[in-house]
Amino acid sequence: MAKMVPVVLCGGSGTRLWPRSRKSFPKPFLPLIGDSTLFEATLARCSDSDGFLPPIVVTGESHLDHVDAQLGDRPGAQVIVEPMARNTAAAIAMAACRLDPETVMLVCPSDHHIADTAAFARSAARAASLAEEGWLVAFGITATAPETGFGYIKRGEPIGEGAYAVERFVEKPDLERARHFLSDGGYSWNGGLFAFRADRFMEELETHRPAIAAAARKAADMGREEGRRFHPDAEAFAAIESESVDYAVMENTDRAAVVPASMGWSDIGSWTSLRDAHVRDQDGNKAHGRAELVDCKNVYVDTDGPRVSVIGLDDVVVVVNGDEVLVTTANGAQKVGKLEGAAKQ
Amino acid sequence: MAKMVPVVLCGGSGTRLWPRSRKSFPKPFLPLIGDSTLFEATLARCSDSDGFLPPIVVTGESHLDHVDAQLGDRPGAQVIVEPMARNTAAAIAMAACRLDPETVMLVCPSDHHIADTAAFARSAARAASLAEEGWLVAFGITATAPETGFGYIKRGEPIGEGAYAVERFVEKPDLERARHFLSDGGYSWNGGLFAFRADRFMEELETHRPAIAAAARKAADMGREEGRRFHPDAEAFAAIESESVDYAVMENTDRAAVVPASMGWSDIGSWTSLRDAHVRDQDGNKAHGRAELVDCKNVYVDTDGPRVSVIGLDDVVVVVNGDEVLVTTANGAQKVGKLEGAAKQ
Repeated sequence: MAKMVPVVLCGGSGTRLWPRSRKSFPKPFLPLIGDSTLFEATLARCSDSDGFLPPIVVTGESHLDHVDAQLGDRPGAQVIVEPMARNTAAAIAMAACRLDPETVMLVCPSDHHIADTAAFARSAARAASLAEEGWLVAFGITATAPETGFGYIKRGEPIGEGAYAVERFVEKPDLERARHFLSDGGYSWNGGLFAFRADRFMEELETHRPAIAAAARKAADMGREEGRRFHPDAEAFAAIESESVDYAVMENTDRAAVVPASMGWSDIGSWTSLRDAHVRDQDGNKAHGRAELVDCKNVYVDTDGPRVSVIGLDDVVVVVNGDEVLVTTANGAQKVGKLEGAAKQ
Repeated sequence: MAKMVPVVLCGGSGTRLWPRSRKSFPKPFLPLIGDSTLFEATLARCSDSDGFLPPIVVTGESHLDHVDAQLGDRPGAQVIVEPMARNTAAAIAMAACRLDPETVMLVCPSDHHIADTAAFARSAARAASLAEEGWLVAFGITATAPETGFGYIKRGEPIGEGAYAVERFVEKPDLERARHFLSDGGYSWNGGLFAFRADRFMEELETHRPAIAAAARKAADMGREEGRRFHPDAEAFAAIESESVDYAVMENTDRAAVVPASMGWSDIGSWTSLRDAHVRDQDGNKAHGRAELVDCKNVYVDTDGPRVSVIGLDDVVVVVNGDEVLVTTANGAQKVGKLEGAAKQ
């Protein structure tokens, strides 16, 4: 089996982990779980010398310092510097255009957590072999709750062991449908992890989104190299329609496959999910930094300096970061991005 | 009616409002409600030129800077500097020894809040006239909840209008008894506010605690003046037994009277009672300093700088002070003094 090229997507700047994540220091580059950042952990998962070639990181100007610092001097690594954000179809197309046609790409978000790296490696190997055969493969994250914040993938007919044709991709459901998906068992979460050959991806893009494909090729052809960095042509890149790989390609191709993956995945999409991704004490509490918790359950504390003392609370997150203090219920964590501090950072 | 001398007691160093109150900056000297500190508000309540003579403040060395700064150059004010803490019987005896025998003393804690100052003035005037007649008068704070943290006063026979002989003083009750006291109606809280003539206080002290009375007289006689300050003799003062005025005198005298007082009193004995002493918004929230409260009820925020954002909480107090952050339920506020930060400050 051929080795894969990890294509690590470092775009966006979420506000859901504010005040710890800031515009200037977004989520992938923070050591949120253990000593590694999510970006570093993503690279580490994809650096097994047996299965992976050096990575391509796709990012924007504003994240370059973080990428350079955390990528280090990894031999053979490339960085594609997007002149502006144009969503994932464009980002992946840029990488595809830089690779030999038959190379298998493993597209990875840089800000997710995967607890079971061995399970990830097994799923990645299965996805790679399907990709070599021409499939466009999505990882199907085993659903463990009726989440309304994720898209779902409905599996169809089996394709050998541990893989299925995709019956369809499903948009974020309401709670009732999410419950149905969970009990049905044939649905899994779409975690934004994909594997396909570079040529197959571009073929499907040309079929379903010819304008995006053409503009992307132009931006790649007219781009310039600068050491390990590649700068797509700004004018051509700006002309690319902003669309996700899901909409542009995965939902349209006849050759979509899904590889189910139970690997302790989390998108760390809120303070609550960050808390839940941690090993916690017997009361469900976890603290980063100086903290004293009295009569607390399921309390998560993250402080960059001041001591945090908490008494009597259940299911609450407390974050201290510089001149901002956040105290929220687990449910309330969904609203963090709408706080004044998060919006005006 | 003769004018009263306010005797303002500034001892102790509680930990119940940690981390805002610290050993070096205790509760009486903080602007906890409005712009005035509790000490300043106490002085202001007792400075009506019709009813009060200049105050005597009884305090310790460690609080002198705060007392001097907040007392200002109030004409005629005196400060008794206790060489060490010896509880309220000694503190009041020091003041009594410095006054003309027939002077009526109004003994006031310096760290309580009284919302209705007009009601206070009326009760003080009633207490003063009884004190002139030789009674030892306690203010009986109208009980509004089955508090287990206060002593209670059971009223006996009426003494004219708005006053009663004390049937007995009652120690802090358990919850069942506190509920009984509340429904009975004949009990009020002992708020540590007293009025009596200096000579009557010393007579009763000599009768019931002759050793304390003798040691106090000696400490006063051998003390030295230094401007408006009076320093009791340290050795003599050290020999005074540490006892409260309640135990030493009020519970023993046959001439104890109680003047019921409904005056919006609070001992500000916890973050919860400080919250409750404030005028709050329609959701019961109140914030000092930069704060954003979303989906909150009965939340109290006090921050000395950082912005505090709170989502979804009910009945919670958040305090930011320097390098300490406290988050507690209203019930949990009772345990603040036992936190590492409060204990080791």
